[in-house]
Amino acid sequence: MKVIPTIREMQQTMIQAKSTGKSIGYVPTMGFLHEGHLTLIDKAREENDLVALSIFVNPLQFGPTEDLSSYPKDFARDRALAEKHGVDIIFYPSVEEMYPVPLSVTVNVKDRTDVLCGKSRPGHFDGVVTVLTKLFHIVQPNKAYFGTKDAQQLAIVEGLVNDFHFPIEIVPVETVREEDGLAKSSRNVNLILEEREQAPVLYESLQAAKSIIEEGERNPEKVISFIQGLIREKSNGVIDYVQIYSYPNLKELERLEGRIIIALAVKFSKARLIDNLIFTIG
Amino acid sequence: MKVIPTIREMQQTMIQAKSTGKSIGYVPTMGFLHEGHLTLIDKAREENDLVALSIFVNPLQFGPTEDLSSYPKDFARDRALAEKHGVDIIFYPSVEEMYPVPLSVTVNVKDRTDVLCGKSRPGHFDGVVTVLTKLFHIVQPNKAYFGTKDAQQLAIVEGLVNDFHFPIEIVPVETVREEDGLAKSSRNVNLILEEREQAPVLYESLQAAKSIIEEGERNPEKVISFIQGLIREKSNGVIDYVQIYSYPNLKELERLEGRIIIALAVKFSKARLIDNLIFTIG
Repeated sequence: MKVIPTIREMQQTMIQAKSTGKSIGYVPTMGFLHEGHLTLIDKAREENDLVALSIFVNPLQFGPTEDLSSYPKDFARDRALAEKHGVDIIFYPSVEEMYPVPLSVTVNVKDRTDVLCGKSRPGHFDGVVTVLTKLFHIVQPNKAYFGTKDAQQLAIVEGLVNDFHFPIEIVPVETVREEDGLAKSSRNVNLILEEREQAPVLYESLQAAKSIIEEGERNPEKVISFIQGLIREKSNGVIDYVQIYSYPNLKELERLEGRIIIALAVKFSKARLIDNLIFTIG
Repeated sequence: MKVIPTIREMQQTMIQAKSTGKSIGYVPTMGFLHEGHLTLIDKAREENDLVALSIFVNPLQFGPTEDLSSYPKDFARDRALAEKHGVDIIFYPSVEEMYPVPLSVTVNVKDRTDVLCGKSRPGHFDGVVTVLTKLFHIVQPNKAYFGTKDAQQLAIVEGLVNDFHFPIEIVPVETVREEDGLAKSSRNVNLILEEREQAPVLYESLQAAKSIIEEGERNPEKVISFIQGLIREKSNGVIDYVQIYSYPNLKELERLEGRIIIALAVKFSKARLIDNLIFTIG
């Protein structure tokens, strides 16, 4: 496994690999790898000749109230995990390498930002698409892997790639879950025992909502109330939001149809959990 | 020669060509080809296995006061000229093909716009970088060819490609000139005879300015006055601007050094002519 810190060497390495006909799978990360990342890497390993991982804590996607300097880092651990899971190349640039001078051109998200978690993070997704435009050109993957857990990020990245015809297939990878259905997250350790026992209701309520839609319910307000009722009944969590949108456009629907996302965020005493379900009706 | 109207077929054709190791030279145009375009095509033909030309009148780069509908078109003539000059593939999409729905992500120029001709065309260069981001991904050239006559466009495109690491070499191609030095332009036919005889002073004054700089002059104001004096003395043209900037950053200089551009625009009775000289001092 190779670790490459410079844009020039990374891009030349990837162009060289591509010219020999190798397919490239790519997993962009901010490091501190967890099981979600490893699932993406495993999937990329299955489907490609070469697997590239990038580790870059992108300052552009942190808001003024978000603490960039306290973002966790452990490169030695990340490196060992990546090697174990068959990564061929880690791209590991510095901030100075990625942003040596102010950008003369900017990339900005115009749509899909003012919903779900994006509402409370203005500018966050501008930072995401800016760094991904750079990284996609540097790594030149055939396929790039993103988790569906951050469904809004996935939808925005699909918008970027479709609008600008990047020759890249975006591969959504299902959320990894505990046996009882709880989405795996590094935040789950902050749940107290009682909350941990209640937390599976998030995914249960999403699945129950899917069932009533499949049985004919088409009113989004009724489905949202149904989910809120289940969560309130079976947990002490405080609902931050339960929302239903078209997917990937993230537009409100008067009547449920087509591909949709049901997404929710619930605050427990020391952890805010998110989950979602994306499916096509009918 | 092939004419391809769809993004999907064009992108697949280019990916296929690249996978066989062919180098791709690309000339983006809005059609109605003139000698400047043909020089770019000839250069691309010399340097690459495959030459791609795009013809697309991009509505995004026209301002509200600029008449998109009256932009000249003659595809039959363009096609014949392209074939004669050895173009392999013309990409000729419709507006609906290129902009089927509003963009969810936009590309915006933050720098180098408020100088030279860009001052009077707000939003113009946003349209240019937006369409080029799409076209570069669709055509996937190794090299793309731009004339130095539109030096501001060239500088902005170099900014786009450098900032976002497009794996493309931007090749600047020298302005084609008449024997007396006048830059070739479709606007030259609008000069009356007396003006046509005076017009070579534009290029003469640029060259004379270069000489005094090479002889030691480092004050930009003095060089600008020197050029203005020559143009006023030898023509009836009304000076729109004479400017000197660093190149490609297009920043004002207190003292002339490094790579610079001297650019001017002069209005004659029925034609506004532009010209420039880019060179490195010392």
